[in-house]
Amino acid sequence: MIFKEPAEIECFGECTVPSPAGYEFYTMEGSRVAYDAIFDPGEEINPAEIRFFEQAGPREKIFFEPSKVKAGIVTCGGLCPGINDVIRGIVMELHYRYGVKDILGFRYGYQGLVKSCGHEPVKLTPHSVRDSMYYGGSILSSSRGNQDPVKMVDYLVELGIDMLFTIGGDGTLRGASAIAEEIKKRNLKISVIGVPKTIDNDIHLIEKTFGFSTAFAEAVKAVNSAYVESVGAPNGIGLVKLMGRHSGFIAANAALASRHVNFVLVPENDFDLYSEGGFLEALKQRILSRHHAVVLVAEGAGQKFFGDDGQRDASGNKKLVDIGPFLKDAIIEFFKSQNIEINLKYIDPSYQIRSVPANADDAVFANFLAQNAVHAAMAGKTNMVVGLWHNVFTHVPISMAVAERKIIKTDKDPLWRSVLATTGQPAHMLCQKGCTEP
Amino acid sequence: MIFKEPAEIECFGECTVPSPAGYEFYTMEGSRVAYDAIFDPGEEINPAEIRFFEQAGPREKIFFEPSKVKAGIVTCGGLCPGINDVIRGIVMELHYRYGVKDILGFRYGYQGLVKSCGHEPVKLTPHSVRDSMYYGGSILSSSRGNQDPVKMVDYLVELGIDMLFTIGGDGTLRGASAIAEEIKKRNLKISVIGVPKTIDNDIHLIEKTFGFSTAFAEAVKAVNSAYVESVGAPNGIGLVKLMGRHSGFIAANAALASRHVNFVLVPENDFDLYSEGGFLEALKQRILSRHHAVVLVAEGAGQKFFGDDGQRDASGNKKLVDIGPFLKDAIIEFFKSQNIEINLKYIDPSYQIRSVPANADDAVFANFLAQNAVHAAMAGKTNMVVGLWHNVFTHVPISMAVAERKIIKTDKDPLWRSVLATTGQPAHMLCQKGCTEP
Amino acid sequence: MIFKEPAEIECFGECTVPSPAGYEFYTMEGSRVAYDAIFDPGEEINPAEIRFFEQAGPREKIFFEPSKVKAGIVTCGGLCPGINDVIRGIVMELHYRYGVKDILGFRYGYQGLVKSCGHEPVKLTPHSVRDSMYYGGSILSSSRGNQDPVKMVDYLVELGIDMLFTIGGDGTLRGASAIAEEIKKRNLKISVIGVPKTIDNDIHLIEKTFGFSTAFAEAVKAVNSAYVESVGAPNGIGLVKLMGRHSGFIAANAALASRHVNFVLVPENDFDLYSEGGFLEALKQRILSRHHAVVLVAEGAGQKFFGDDGQRDASGNKKLVDIGPFLKDAIIEFFKSQNIEINLKYIDPSYQIRSVPANADDAVFANFLAQNAVHAAMAGKTNMVVGLWHNVFTHVPISMAVAERKIIKTDKDPLWRSVLATTGQPAHMLCQKGCTEP
Amino acid sequence: MIFKEPAEIECFGECTVPSPAGYEFYTMEGSRVAYDAIFDPGEEINPAEIRFFEQAGPREKIFFEPSKVKAGIVTCGGLCPGINDVIRGIVMELHYRYGVKDILGFRYGYQGLVKSCGHEPVKLTPHSVRDSMYYGGSILSSSRGNQDPVKMVDYLVELGIDMLFTIGGDGTLRGASAIAEEIKKRNLKISVIGVPKTIDNDIHLIEKTFGFSTAFAEAVKAVNSAYVESVGAPNGIGLVKLMGRHSGFIAANAALASRHVNFVLVPENDFDLYSEGGFLEALKQRILSRHHAVVLVAEGAGQKFFGDDGQRDASGNKKLVDIGPFLKDAIIEFFKSQNIEINLKYIDPSYQIRSVPANADDAVFANFLAQNAVHAAMAGKTNMVVGLWHNVFTHVPISMAVAERKIIKTDKDPLWRSVLATTGQPAHMLCQKGCTEP
Repeated sequence: MIFKEPAEIECFGECTVPSPAGYEFYTMEGSRVAYDAIFDPGEEINPAEIRFFEQAGPREKIFFEPSKVKAGIVTCGGLCPGINDVIRGIVMELHYRYGVKDILGFRYGYQGLVKSCGHEPVKLTPHSVRDSMYYGGSILSSSRGNQDPVKMVDYLVELGIDMLFTIGGDGTLRGASAIAEEIKKRNLKISVIGVPKTIDNDIHLIEKTFGFSTAFAEAVKAVNSAYVESVGAPNGIGLVKLMGRHSGFIAANAALASRHVNFVLVPENDFDLYSEGGFLEALKQRILSRHHAVVLVAEGAGQKFFGDDGQRDASGNKKLVDIGPFLKDAIIEFFKSQNIEINLKYIDPSYQIRSVPANADDAVFANFLAQNAVHAAMAGKTNMVVGLWHNVFTHVPISMAVAERKIIKTDKDPLWRSVLATTGQPAHMLCQKGCTEP
Repeated sequence: MIFKEPAEIECFGECTVPSPAGYEFYTMEGSRVAYDAIFDPGEEINPAEIRFFEQAGPREKIFFEPSKVKAGIVTCGGLCPGINDVIRGIVMELHYRYGVKDILGFRYGYQGLVKSCGHEPVKLTPHSVRDSMYYGGSILSSSRGNQDPVKMVDYLVELGIDMLFTIGGDGTLRGASAIAEEIKKRNLKISVIGVPKTIDNDIHLIEKTFGFSTAFAEAVKAVNSAYVESVGAPNGIGLVKLMGRHSGFIAANAALASRHVNFVLVPENDFDLYSEGGFLEALKQRILSRHHAVVLVAEGAGQKFFGDDGQRDASGNKKLVDIGPFLKDAIIEFFKSQNIEINLKYIDPSYQIRSVPANADDAVFANFLAQNAVHAAMAGKTNMVVGLWHNVFTHVPISMAVAERKIIKTDKDPLWRSVLATTGQPAHMLCQKGCTEP
Repeated sequence: MIFKEPAEIECFGECTVPSPAGYEFYTMEGSRVAYDAIFDPGEEINPAEIRFFEQAGPREKIFFEPSKVKAGIVTCGGLCPGINDVIRGIVMELHYRYGVKDILGFRYGYQGLVKSCGHEPVKLTPHSVRDSMYYGGSILSSSRGNQDPVKMVDYLVELGIDMLFTIGGDGTLRGASAIAEEIKKRNLKISVIGVPKTIDNDIHLIEKTFGFSTAFAEAVKAVNSAYVESVGAPNGIGLVKLMGRHSGFIAANAALASRHVNFVLVPENDFDLYSEGGFLEALKQRILSRHHAVVLVAEGAGQKFFGDDGQRDASGNKKLVDIGPFLKDAIIEFFKSQNIEINLKYIDPSYQIRSVPANADDAVFANFLAQNAVHAAMAGKTNMVVGLWHNVFTHVPISMAVAERKIIKTDKDPLWRSVLATTGQPAHMLCQKGCTEP
Repeated sequence: MIFKEPAEIECFGECTVPSPAGYEFYTMEGSRVAYDAIFDPGEEINPAEIRFFEQAGPREKIFFEPSKVKAGIVTCGGLCPGINDVIRGIVMELHYRYGVKDILGFRYGYQGLVKSCGHEPVKLTPHSVRDSMYYGGSILSSSRGNQDPVKMVDYLVELGIDMLFTIGGDGTLRGASAIAEEIKKRNLKISVIGVPKTIDNDIHLIEKTFGFSTAFAEAVKAVNSAYVESVGAPNGIGLVKLMGRHSGFIAANAALASRHVNFVLVPENDFDLYSEGGFLEALKQRILSRHHAVVLVAEGAGQKFFGDDGQRDASGNKKLVDIGPFLKDAIIEFFKSQNIEINLKYIDPSYQIRSVPANADDAVFANFLAQNAVHAAMAGKTNMVVGLWHNVFTHVPISMAVAERKIIKTDKDPLWRSVLATTGQPAHMLCQKGCTEP
């Protein structure tokens, strides 16, 4: 990963308008956060090679004239705890700190930015968002998939929008970038600021995303149910499918928090099913010795068992085959073939996890993201997303954030080391010799 | 329903041993609870026709000599919140009030009562059950299905058990009754006392079963998730399958508590799917007018769509076909055929619901059941189950309790009236004219 | 307690208007619920002596012409979980079932019914109450104390109110009755229907009040905290003051649900502090033997230690002296005098208990109360309160409901028997011989 | 703050024993974490001036021979969510990874390390700590105050302890350091490793302490209750006292998460009560304009109103006067003097907050702390505490950690900036002109 110092953020021009926000203190433009923090023994530090993020925060001088600003908010992709906290935070900050009273909420994701889709935008006010943090989901609703940037910018122009806040993940950010490019092509000054939303916590260069803390806490409840079921019947197996298309952060953290998990299967860690050394053999050993087991599987794990048929969902993500029922069937068949009676209970809690309101940590965090998104927009920045690094809020160019995905590095991340220690699962569940994987 | 007054409870003989329980006051043998309470206008009451239950409670004189008693506890069938509270309550009452120190827990349901199954019983003490109420499930584990009463009584005799507490539902109670009959045949004096456990709350003549309050409160969480999902996407439909093999009490109460439900499909209420007047047409109207809907379906609803292939589970219950995925597919196909794009989210929270610890209400209730079960056993009663009627604890012969099931009477129960009022669903979703149900 | 059968409910006249509610079935006027259900062995039942309540429910014919009805709602006294559920239920039932669109919410309790107080009533609509059940407290706010019935009726007349729903406890019901009497004096037809609210669950002739289930479940959390604190320090004592001015239902149920409580002090059970046989001696024995203890005290317990100085609160209730800090100081002083080091932690969770939203049980229950209150009002009944008896909703004349209070009968209630069994506390903590109570 | 790079950790000697932990990968001795991460615009970075922490983690070579190791654990000071998670994590890591089977738990804090106090240590095994994370508090109990290091080391030597894990805050760490010094004086090799515990989250050089996330989430519940109470009565004021002896992190975060708070009073921010510009005047303005208010006060705020009478608690902390009741009385008196009727509800939830089990975040975090504490001890390090910096686990010399306290920097911390923005409270509530503060 290579980036300039500080990672350069697009900007519409010089900030000359005194901020009306009335803060006690402001963040200096140019303040930086170092990317690297851990150094090997004896490693020499070359100041010229240190990489930085731009620090987020309110600027004393801003770009837009607040009294004339019209803002828009859109929420895209799957639900995630805390979306409403972000919406609320943006509205409150715009309204009370900057005096921006004209705020529109676009409904049903990017569909709402295409006039012909017919979803009328709604006016957002402090009153209308006041209690939104009590509800899960998005008060604006959402949808998957991108739309034509030309049509979206047409509508933004027609509505006179000066700044657009897009709350969404990888696909949404690509869409936001396409909007920003179209705006640039037309030489307009409409700020496009992303607030990163991914319940999987897998956005590159961003330490943590809102909703993740809530999500894995909810996941723990399902895991504990699986544990109770597993010990409640002879040779009980509790199998829980959790979110995690490309990274297993939720599964890994849920396993650590629950402490009742025996196997965690994640996309980052290849595993085989059959024959010596594979997962099923390890599970059999566990059942024979302890008579119950809890297995977590992230939805993106084991995709090698399915091949790629080229299918994509509306957001352009590769359509994953559902590993949950596949694994459930494989386990049942396997133990039948071994003449071992088991009682498998399969739990898929995904919708229940993602639809709850944000917990206290995420509520605070989502609010900070929202406020910093507003600061960035008011300062005329665009095509960027608000991030977090070393617990400091940052600005990250969208192009950098979507360049790759954050994953668990199973060969050096203490998180994975702790998962192995806590579960006692074999580090490698791959066939030791010629095996007959399907 | 016809029964003698008070419904006659089998008993081993006269109670002559002074109770060591040291209570401030006792319940008189012969104290009765009237079955009927509601009378039509002008209805005359004939005292000779009033039907009664025997009232439960500690007796001043008991049948067994406590110092010589050896007790056993077994938990059967599916998990349910509060099982551990009942176990704990029985152990504490036996130990501290009656001085019974010799208590065995049989593991894995009735399997544990068959010596050859090899599940060694565990000794239960106040210390070993002390914190059990913090955990869901059963500390004794459970299993489905009955076992040979001859083998079970053989083992009870071998172990010297004087009283057996069976915690379970319909099937378990039939099993308990078979054990009691076998004991009678051998002219033994082993008390068999049932504590009714059914998360569906469907045991005849018993007002309420433990775990039900907790269960529908948990169900509400899933329903609220379904609601959040339904409003979070264009034409969102949240479909939740809930427990309820023969009765829809959980679904009905969850709908009332959540207040976000548009359709409740229960076993007691026949419905068609296709053509005019059927469920799918009603759902379509809802989607077209409001663009989101929440549907609850109890697992035993709509079994007419599947026929009876004669399959039975280990407990002897007819194997229900899973209405959840069937209905999910039917809805998706239907809207596809209508060219209406929907976003259906299917939630099956059953294991998550039944595996949580009891809430405060159920904790108190389960404890009362446990104590009254002990009182009944000490008084030499047998082949009965502890019940509740007009909020008074009662003794009910097992034969009466299993004679039929409690269901929602959709033509006169205020519960169902309120469900219709709250959801706004049509009272009858049956084809109005010649229709093409599969 | 003596009352006519069925307890006679005041009514404005014959019901001749066909109900527009469109229910599948209705409750017959004159349907009755028997008061007595438990009978002693051998007790003869004289049908002429059976006492009844009138059964609540929607009537097929009603008194008021719904399209002309204007309704008002007021919430009085202390907060309680579920108030908003009742408000919501009344508004929804009036609006959707009976077509009553004109509904006012009076703010700040009976103050809102006095025009000169200046609290403008607010219009209540399905939209405005839609999400109210998510919040604790009352969306109408509340206040303590009655107001002049003349002024209140003046305002009702000025506003054209036809039916007033008063949600409140003992004091509120007396106020409602005074309003009803004033209305009668003026020969008006304004229905006054009470929905009983008392977190203490102490209203006479009413089996259960909304919010109680939620309240004692919340209380259990505080009790469990007290337990954790008590075992977390040498000779730890956790002292929790709970609600319960005249009855100890919350404390008793919290003790049963928690199972960590050693002493429950309630208003119904006299106790002494000092000298042999008193509470402090019993507590000392517990500390010396087990080194930790949990004590619950209901706020109205031990008032004999304070005398009556004649003070009354705004609702006319005798001002209780706060037993909590008094007992805390007494315990600390006592152990100091005994040279025993203790660590006492005092917890007063009252506001935290009463301000949470209703749990699932209370949500369902509050909704039923609300619907039945509407049915009663539409049927032209007045000066009554909606009750529950043998799990059936009833009509109770206010005069009967306020005639006395429901308390725990410590000499025959199985609840108290179970408290003694569970805590192990002495049944009587009164000085055995000449003692020196202050 | 000045420290060597990396902050030098005391160590008993070279690590020569191969670790039996069987980890997939290890942390290199000498791996470092940079202290500074944020740089001003244009600021030049001098590599020679960069300050570092030593990185925590399992070492490939360790100091102690695991099979001979005997370990001890002690928990001191006030309760905090997660203590049992730390105990459990230490026991599990020692037992399963390093094969250390001989582990003692000292009871009642440092009292348990003094033989003559008579608290027998308990043997800790995987079985005995297995479910400890379900309970709040400490399974070892705790106590305040230090003990004579000579006596404590005597007992450690007598028992043959090789490593002592002390879970506690500032005072406990000073005590641990005194023990380590005494050990050094005697030329013994007993490792003393601190796990920082402070619910206030105020330990210097340590980013986050376990239990804090849980604590402020619990605090939010109390704050929300205060809000419900404040809007539930005319001119309602909800006053909540929260933990925070020297720093207001809990109050600040609870305010941000709740979003219903109007004033946050913390130790770091001086304020006056009376006269123009003071707190009470600001509160009055709020009440007159909005008729309700929520006030949070950290226990250490406003100590200037009391002077220092020199009193210290058993842990050597200055005895704070209880600001809560003082402020409550001041507010009541003030509004009485202004002839404004208010309804103040005072909530002190401290014991309820600190006694709950750890939430999912804290569970994971506590476990990591525990594991890293074990790694450090096995590597022969001593007189240090496990920390966190830039989300990386670190080793911090106790002397550095106790040198000062972490506080909210009200002139540059974005946390405080956000509190001011969210509450709308004046940044400075000090008398503008001659005022009459007591």
